[in-house]
Amino acid sequence: MKQEKKLPQLNTVLSPALLSLYDLSSNVVVIIDVLRATSTIATALYNGAKEIIPVASVAECIKLGKQLDVITAGERDGQVAEGLQYGNTPFQYDENFIKGKTLVLTTTNGTKLLHMALAANAEEIVTGSFCNLSAVSDYLIQQNKNVILACAAWKNKVNLEDTLLAGAIIANIKNSFSINCDASAIAETLYQQAQDNLYEFMKNKNASHYHRLMGFGLEKDLRYCLTINNANVLCIYKNGRLVNPVIPGK
Amino acid sequence: MKQEKKLPQLNTVLSPALLSLYDLSSNVVVIIDVLRATSTIATALYNGAKEIIPVASVAECIKLGKQLDVITAGERDGQVAEGLQYGNTPFQYDENFIKGKTLVLTTTNGTKLLHMALAANAEEIVTGSFCNLSAVSDYLIQQNKNVILACAAWKNKVNLEDTLLAGAIIANIKNSFSINCDASAIAETLYQQAQDNLYEFMKNKNASHYHRLMGFGLEKDLRYCLTINNANVLCIYKNGRLVNPVIPGK
Repeated sequence: MKQEKKLPQLNTVLSPALLSLYDLSSNVVVIIDVLRATSTIATALYNGAKEIIPVASVAECIKLGKQLDVITAGERDGQVAEGLQYGNTPFQYDENFIKGKTLVLTTTNGTKLLHMALAANAEEIVTGSFCNLSAVSDYLIQQNKNVILACAAWKNKVNLEDTLLAGAIIANIKNSFSINCDASAIAETLYQQAQDNLYEFMKNKNASHYHRLMGFGLEKDLRYCLTINNANVLCIYKNGRLVNPVIPGK
Repeated sequence: MKQEKKLPQLNTVLSPALLSLYDLSSNVVVIIDVLRATSTIATALYNGAKEIIPVASVAECIKLGKQLDVITAGERDGQVAEGLQYGNTPFQYDENFIKGKTLVLTTTNGTKLLHMALAANAEEIVTGSFCNLSAVSDYLIQQNKNVILACAAWKNKVNLEDTLLAGAIIANIKNSFSINCDASAIAETLYQQAQDNLYEFMKNKNASHYHRLMGFGLEKDLRYCLTINNANVLCIYKNGRLVNPVIPGK
């Protein structure tokens, strides 16, 4: 009798406040903060950043930046945090600016969630965004391990854009996983409705973060962060740093 | 200049673990536990139950049932809880059985969430299900107060059926509310995809509770609980009891 191949499990967590319901220890955890932390991370690594050190607090970011004499960046509530040099817009991190450099980064939701996943003993952590959708999807299939898609949300409130990215990843990789998770079904259904025009979907659905960023004049950021594969590198957390493992030290 | 009417706010909470993010004090909170607590509650009141006393624990249910000499019912993990007389299937509560009677009820998710909302000072509490969709929707419009649609989920994990009902209520009442809540947009989008055949949608999306109940041979319950307006009464919490205010003591 032919034995059926046992597929790894995939689960989606729509808010950091739900992360503790899952055992992360044997999982690859994908940190999702589409607007804008994980889009910015992908962009910086795509443009040749040596590494990104994600930290949970602004104070830690300032301290570590001084110690290492490197760039500090981050936001609180969508704007550059006081005491940091740069913000969370992917457009800051072009090749001229970031190539070969180290960046210490803190954001309202994304870097916090990454540290929660670390504390919960995630076996492996990568960051995901529309900017690096294919790289993440391919990696998850290749690893053949259990996966948690962890949405950073907004101060624990479920948001559209992170749920949409979870759905996009699921659409790409579902045949390689066993999915018994209603949140995953919700995310995938949502993405199916949105995929033809993510920006218009966010606008039409009155997404809270759409309004937050438009209020800051950041339509350009919004459109960029909702574009698929425009910074298509794997962003993997190793030894306290997010790096692109394919071209180390590019 | 004509002043625009200020609409009340509507928010959707996809898991009890997210309820504390919201101020319930000036809200009508709709407790949603489609499979099966709030469907059973609507059915019992529709069939003339005098009142339903929701309690959080099995022990409390047994104790109160003895004190009042009334029917006790409830489930844990989808099956009749030990020590209780009846389960959580709506088919138990026909007119012959329940008319004029008091029921003390405890369930895995729904009655727990109701007590969380009480503890968080909800201004008013009603229960919602597909069985009483129109009654709930009409009431919310008529009250003209802020609304929280609170999904009971499954042990805090977001589920399809409760999210779908939130979406169905939103579809009915959205013109009377100001909705700046991504979870509401997600719920409504999901419902739009599912509304033509809720049962098939649950089956096709591999809903976890679909499998749980089918595993217990409860397809009949599933189909009933996904039928719109088959027990269309308002179920409102007053003085520790859920009652149908329209026909008190029917």
